[in-house]
Amino acid sequence: MIGKLNHVAIVVPDLAAASAIYRDTLGGDVSEPVNLREHGVTTVFVNLPNTKIELLHPFGDDSPIAKFLENNPSGGMHHVCYEVDDILAARDKLKADGARVLGDGDPKIGAHGKPVLFLHPKDFCGTLVELEQV
Amino acid sequence: MIGKLNHVAIVVPDLAAASAIYRDTLGGDVSEPVNLREHGVTTVFVNLPNTKIELLHPFGDDSPIAKFLENNPSGGMHHVCYEVDDILAARDKLKADGARVLGDGDPKIGAHGKPVLFLHPKDFCGTLVELEQV
Repeated sequence: MIGKLNHVAIVVPDLAAASAIYRDTLGGDVSEPVNLREHGVTTVFVNLPNTKIELLHPFGDDSPIAKFLENNPSGGMHHVCYEVDDILAARDKLKADGARVLGDGDPKIGAHGKPVLFLHPKDFCGTLVELEQV
Repeated sequence: MIGKLNHVAIVVPDLAAASAIYRDTLGGDVSEPVNLREHGVTTVFVNLPNTKIELLHPFGDDSPIAKFLENNPSGGMHHVCYEVDDILAARDKLKADGARVLGDGDPKIGAHGKPVLFLHPKDFCGTLVELEQV
């Protein structure tokens, strides 16, 4: 079912500092920041030859990652995102296997404009898993 | 400097259960476990089309990941590994930029038989970073 690793998301306390670390210290190909008001995050991408690192920072007053940053003030790895061909088929298979889909269980349009689901970390080795239909 | 994402490492409390989740629930291509006595870990790889997930469990009494599992009993994302062409040049550049290399600063032969270094999470957005020369 799962295909490519679309990205690894890392929540950071300071996007400019994180961009500098990934661009200047690690020599990565780093994008400009983009504010995604409806998702409550600002994103910066580190484009690697085979996948992406998504640097995330809270945007606005009701960010879904505000609590994570409170608990991890230096930042930290937040989730991994796997690509799937058919997100509804994936969702149904996962639910049949007893895995918990976060929210109301319906795919939402994610930060990249594609349907996504998030899976409960307790069902996936303590790791928040995003599935994205590509 | 950094090239491909070689792998994302996830520490898990039960390798058989984690393998089943990645193989049966997520439909991934999951390897058999391998004990790496000198590294104090047992590894299972989830081979994705573009990179790998490395599931890690402590092996032996003095595992470097025992403490992590104590602090994260459900498991969790442990590190990301980026490929570099020349690990000594990478190390010297990182140190010149003020980044802390863990241990004595010299590359060690890692779990995949190649020279690796680990970088201090506090210098990399709360994320433990491994560099592997490929």
